[in-house]
Amino acid sequence: MNDFFWLQQSVKPLSEAARDAALARQAQLTKPPGSLGKLEAIAVQLASLQGTDRPQMERVRISIFAADHGVAAEGVSAFPQAVTVEMVKNFARGGAAISVLAKQANATLEVVNLGTVLPVEPMAKVRDERIAAGTANFAQGPAMTVEQLAQALQAGHAAVLRAKQDGAHLFIGGEMGIANTTSASAIACALLQESPQLLAGPGTGLDNKGVAHKAAVIQRALELHRANLAQPLDVLRHVGGFEIAALAGAYLAAAQNGIPALVDGFISSVAALTAVRFNPNVRGWLLFAHTSTEPGHQRVLAALDAQPLLQLGMRLGEGSGAATAVPLLQLACALHNNMATFAEAQVSGKL
Amino acid sequence: MNDFFWLQQSVKPLSEAARDAALARQAQLTKPPGSLGKLEAIAVQLASLQGTDRPQMERVRISIFAADHGVAAEGVSAFPQAVTVEMVKNFARGGAAISVLAKQANATLEVVNLGTVLPVEPMAKVRDERIAAGTANFAQGPAMTVEQLAQALQAGHAAVLRAKQDGAHLFIGGEMGIANTTSASAIACALLQESPQLLAGPGTGLDNKGVAHKAAVIQRALELHRANLAQPLDVLRHVGGFEIAALAGAYLAAAQNGIPALVDGFISSVAALTAVRFNPNVRGWLLFAHTSTEPGHQRVLAALDAQPLLQLGMRLGEGSGAATAVPLLQLACALHNNMATFAEAQVSGKL
Repeated sequence: MNDFFWLQQSVKPLSEAARDAALARQAQLTKPPGSLGKLEAIAVQLASLQGTDRPQMERVRISIFAADHGVAAEGVSAFPQAVTVEMVKNFARGGAAISVLAKQANATLEVVNLGTVLPVEPMAKVRDERIAAGTANFAQGPAMTVEQLAQALQAGHAAVLRAKQDGAHLFIGGEMGIANTTSASAIACALLQESPQLLAGPGTGLDNKGVAHKAAVIQRALELHRANLAQPLDVLRHVGGFEIAALAGAYLAAAQNGIPALVDGFISSVAALTAVRFNPNVRGWLLFAHTSTEPGHQRVLAALDAQPLLQLGMRLGEGSGAATAVPLLQLACALHNNMATFAEAQVSGKL
Repeated sequence: MNDFFWLQQSVKPLSEAARDAALARQAQLTKPPGSLGKLEAIAVQLASLQGTDRPQMERVRISIFAADHGVAAEGVSAFPQAVTVEMVKNFARGGAAISVLAKQANATLEVVNLGTVLPVEPMAKVRDERIAAGTANFAQGPAMTVEQLAQALQAGHAAVLRAKQDGAHLFIGGEMGIANTTSASAIACALLQESPQLLAGPGTGLDNKGVAHKAAVIQRALELHRANLAQPLDVLRHVGGFEIAALAGAYLAAAQNGIPALVDGFISSVAALTAVRFNPNVRGWLLFAHTSTEPGHQRVLAALDAQPLLQLGMRLGEGSGAATAVPLLQLACALHNNMATFAEAQVSGKL
């Protein structure tokens, strides 16, 4: 069932005709040209992605991928590993930030459990797709097997196909997994050839000593796996996590299936970078929601040539920054579609 | 009817008790402390303003003040003066950016015509409060009389009292008036002791030559009125506009009446600076929505010690940047009020 063949499918091309039509419409709306700034650019980008001069942003899908990390045993997180399962339940019951944000955005939310250490009892909104009881500790060996990597990537692919089935105008991936900034930082170091001292950060709240320890653990892992870090999928397998691989698979699948994806913060951006390194055409299908305070994020965003919409000092993950940016996409579409033109409103143009 | 006595009313104090209760609640919500960044700070600020640990952001009032400017005769705008009336109609008919944004935010919108050159036929949502057929050309004399200034300030006061009557959780002021960035730049120069060459910008779309001419017109006006620019209300009277004075009156009245005000872009921020210079306690009641690309805005924001929520490259006015930020305030309140605590969700705390 799990193979790598789908990974080779080509990415859907953007529509230049729809982009040009949207640009022409923007020039006729009753405002000085360019005066809505990025809201204009978003509408035009969404038009080119959705292949229509009137882009829509009503049906938003949020899939949160959750999994535990063997590297948590190295003491790299400020929170205990039990929190992964506890937060999966909190997502499903509506008490987490992403639950509240999803409700406000009228988005459909699902949680995909790819491998918490302990199973979660059956709950509405939680899909049990556990690959293993967490990844292996990548400070001691590869995080996952080839088969496990294929399963994790495929889980992201499947989530996007479900979103497509439901007619989603936008896909948002979220993540939960204690120690997953350690994994994301290790991936970023490998892909960007940067040092852990530069890219490792406090995550959920490490102090300076904790961050230094985390960087040392990553440094050790990069040395251990250095013969296996040349290709993005190899990087994922050796120092990644199930949920990060699923996000990378989801971004690739979104681009293949023509669904715009709104990327959240540091971990999601690392997954996006992995997908873009695997297939550079994925980049055109990605929008970037916010700049996290996690110090590695800016470096990853720069590598993706991404200018996120929001700078709110957020660093929660879960897809929360992306969900916070959804209203901006909705406003961009509403303005583009519903404003009057100079002719319609009988407003005089520029002198 | 129009006097200056209400201006001396004191500003409502903020609630430290509500702020402390909101801070305590934030610390218990299921997220790493501080991880929602500015969304946490907004919720706490709104709590202190609304005097409750559970702030609300459902009823939003947008009042757009419109008026013409005599200084338009100096050729300082990229659009003809007729656009002021045309846009008043466009606001009311739902075709303008602010009309679309207000609808998306479920906000109530009113347009207050304080002095278009030509009258506007009676329309729903448009209040006819014309003080005169535009201000006088301040390059040749004072923009308005003392009585006209009182009327304009009072129009802002009255708009806030209407909002209070309707139980508004937030007041947004917008503005429309061809040539009003020239007036706003002149006010900012007078209040900040800066040169027009630094603060004048393209407005709706002047080229470099147009901006230089605009700066020269402002320079001449500042020299003409230099004996009368020591007090903020004198500055308003000599180089202001009816809609800018109304905004200043509205911000003062919002602070007096305990309604948080969300400030839009350059022109609104100049009105806010005028109000804060008149009574520094007004500052506590203001939130700042976005940073405009109009070059003077950053200098005005710095003088107000304001860090706006959004940087989207907008420069439209009308209250559009403020309306775009409303969803962020709503999300901040929803997260604050609806997220589960660690105890409620049985989630483990920090190690």
